Order: sequence, then structure tokens, then C-alpha cells
Amino acid sequence: MLPDRTFFHALADAAKAETLPRFRTGVSIVNKIQEGFDPVTEGDRAAETAIRAMIVAKFPGHGILGEEHGNTGLDREHVWVIDPIDGTRAFISGLPVWGTLIGFQSHGRAMMGLMDQPFIGERYYADGTRAWYSGPDGERQLATRDCGALANAILFTTSPHIFTGEDAVRYRAVEEKVRLFRYGCDCYAYALLAAGHIDLVVENSLKPYDVGALIPIIEQAGGVITTWDGGRPENGGSIVAAGSKAVHEEAMALLAGR
Amino acid sequence: MLPDRTFFHALADAAKAETLPRFRTGVSIVNKIQEGFDPVTEGDRAAETAIRAMIVAKFPGHGILGEEHGNTGLDREHVWVIDPIDGTRAFISGLPVWGTLIGFQSHGRAMMGLMDQPFIGERYYADGTRAWYSGPDGERQLATRDCGALANAILFTTSPHIFTGEDAVRYRAVEEKVRLFRYGCDCYAYALLAAGHIDLVVENSLKPYDVGALIPIIEQAGGVITTWDGGRPENGGSIVAAGSKAVHEEAMALLAGR
Repeated sequence: MLPDRTFFHALADAAKAETLPRFRTGVSIVNKIQEGFDPVTEGDRAAETAIRAMIVAKFPGHGILGEEHGNTGLDREHVWVIDPIDGTRAFISGLPVWGTLIGFQSHGRAMMGLMDQPFIGERYYADGTRAWYSGPDGERQLATRDCGALANAILFTTSPHIFTGEDAVRYRAVEEKVRLFRYGCDCYAYALLAAGHIDLVVENSLKPYDVGALIPIIEQAGGVITTWDGGRPENGGSIVAAGSKAVHEEAMALLAGR
Repeated sequence: MLPDRTFFHALADAAKAETLPRFRTGVSIVNKIQEGFDPVTEGDRAAETAIRAMIVAKFPGHGILGEEHGNTGLDREHVWVIDPIDGTRAFISGLPVWGTLIGFQSHGRAMMGLMDQPFIGERYYADGTRAWYSGPDGERQLATRDCGALANAILFTTSPHIFTGEDAVRYRAVEEKVRLFRYGCDCYAYALLAAGHIDLVVENSLKPYDVGALIPIIEQAGGVITTWDGGRPENGGSIVAAGSKAVHEEAMALLAGR
């Protein structure tokens, strides 16, 4: 038995009950890593606990890959991929572009997924075939757009500082070609891509839970998401997502260094 | 007679009626400047037209400084300072962190102001004495926070690319000292500062209409906003805004190059 829309939304509701009350409250931050800044809030942990409990109760045979509480049964046919708060920097800054990511894989391939933005009240959901938006501007099917060429593209990335060495050179080659670029949106950038508002997202060092829920949303909205060298994106790493095949190929030619 | 809260909100409502229906609709972009990218939407122009009409009808003796339709009576006692869509890049990217800025000056000094984010449904308003928030998480008085020292601060700026030459060196000295920095929020960064979610905003090349509405919101929430050398910010230029005097002084010492 596969999960349905109702179950995905119930998971998002449970997570929201833990995250939203803690947003903009100045809750204490726990640094997971001593060096560098990798904040995670109590909401992050409580939300994943809530999501996992519901999955275990309903689908005891499924595996779970989670940011906060580790992995179980990753070799099973069905695996959930969870990032309770993607965009923790946005979260602790009071900026409502963080999201809860709930993905579902079948035989190692992203199949369904939901991205929830609790404060704005937006959900982006892929049901296995198509992708859907619900939020302040209504409900509709998601569709990426084809801006035709890289020169017409709006590009988002988390920060120029995430790229170093040869990666930075390649990233900059893309940034120099696009019409407009913007920094700092984490998962929300992929949602905007799926909705046809922007054309390209380029990032690196992503974890599987950073992209697990977003892959089916982008693919089922008509977009393309792969690693920089064109491989499947389920394991994360260096990721390029585009609204159309043409723009994806043009970006990938620069990113793959071929 | 001075404008009141009701009038400010009526102006924001009129602007919203022009901007929000055009948000995320893929409306055609007009480039104001041939070189470089300075997009402005029909919504930008229509919103300013609507705001100006209401001001002229109610306060015919007041001056108006606007982004889209020029200036009139800047030498008058009372002057309105309007940016109908601040954050046009966010607007055309479908990202809900743009805002409508409506400021009011008395004898050249910022006195009242409103920042509206129509999609999220948030308003930040300074009434001449105090600053107020209304939005999805309720209504309350705005208060900046004192994080104590620059090393504890969360810093926002539009983009590292806005700084060149000596400005870039000085900006980077600040960025290297803070706890966390983030790019890309335009007026929304100042709103987060006024609300006590972040601690510092550093920018340059701002126009008077980019800051006119934000100055009173920050000051009346308890924050400090000046030029990099400590002057009044009404004319824009290089701006530093902080949640407390201590953090402002520490940042200014690096930015002023003294």
C-alpha cells in the first residue's frame, strides 16, 4: 500500500504543530557541529519525531532516512526521506522561506513528496504522477516553464560561498550567463522552480534529505533535476534543477566541465 | 493635520489591489535602464498612481517623492516617500519578500511609515512614536533586540555584489565578524530587524524611497539606522541599521573606515 495525499498532509500538519509555534520566538539554538554554524531548533527535532511516529504506525515496513534522528531500513522497497526544517538559517532569522520536506522513495527512486511552508501556508505536493500547489493564491497543478535559453533564466542558489575551487569557477560561468540571479532560499527555490516562477537552481553539498521531497515535485511539474554530471539526484551532492530540458542541458554543459 | 493609521492602511490596501493580482502571473517586465537589470512591473507603476491619487486628494499641500512617477514639492513641510514595490527582483521571481513602502517626513525627517507584504499579509507600521506588527502571527508592538556584540549578530544584506572597492573591504570586515549572514531580502530585512529577529542590515546605493518608510519603523522599534558615517539616513546612500546602539557602533567603526 502506498501513502496518499491525505497521509502526506497529515504528516505536514503534525510537523507544523511543532515548528510554527517555535518560529520567531527566539527559541534557543543548539549547534550540532562545534566548528561552523549548523543550527537546529527544538522544532526540527520535535517535528521529525512526530513525522516518524506516524510513519512507523501506518507503514511499519517502510524505511526512514531523517536529518535529525538517523536512518532505519534504507534497503527496503519504500523509504521516507525527511528534513523537518530545511532552511534553518531562514528559520532562526524569522524569514518565512524555510520548509518541511517529506519525500517518499520506491526502489531507491523519488516517487512522491511534499514541501510545506507553514507560516505562509503553502504546500507543494507530488502525488506520483503530477505536482500540485495550494496556498494563499489558490490551488492548481504545478508546471515549470521553459524560458528557452540560459540567457533568459532566473537562477537561485543558497549562497556564492557554498562553491569553492573548480566548483566556484563552474558555478560562476552559469551565473554570468543568466538574466538574473539571487541568493538564499534553500528548498523554497525548488518550489518556485516547480511553480514556473524561476528557471534554474544550482547547489552543491546537498544531503539526500535536502532533495528527497523536491525531486518528484520538480519532475512531476515538468522540470529536470540531476547531479551536475547528469546522474540521478537521490543521493544529493552537486545538484542542478531546471524548468526545461534545454536550460538544464545548457547549464549542465558549464557545470560538468566537459 | 497629520495622517493616521487608517489612512496609511488605506494607502497600502490601494497599492495591494494593484500589486498582488500581478504577483506570480508572469506579467511582462519593462527594463527601465537599458544596461543592467532594473525591472519594474506594471504593478509598480499602477500602485504608485493609486497611492499618489489618495494623497493628493486628502493632503493637497504635501510633497511626494516617488520611485516611479517623480517628485513634487520636496521643499514642503510634509513629504511622502513612496516605493510601491521594493524588491522587484523578488517580485518577478515569485518570492514573497518584496514590500510596498510608504513613508512620511516632517521637516525632512522621517516620522511615520508603513511596510506592507501583501502576499504573506504582514504590515510593519510606525505611528510617529511606536512601531507595530500585524500579520499571520498576530498583532504586537515591534521591538528590536540587543544581541550585545557584533559577534552575536545575524546580518542581512541584498547581495555581496553591491559592494565594490573600499566599500567591499569594509563590508567584508563586518561579515567576517558576525555569527551568521544572509543575502537577498531588500526591505524585508529591515522589517525583520524591527521585529527583533535579526540584528544588523548593511547596504549601499540606496535611494531615499528605499529607506523613507523603514527609518521610523526601525527607530520607533528601538533600533538605530544611519549612513555608514553616522549621518541621518533620509537621503539613502550607504546605510547601516542595527537592533541596538552597541551593535550599531561596532559595525559603524568598521564601515566608516576610521
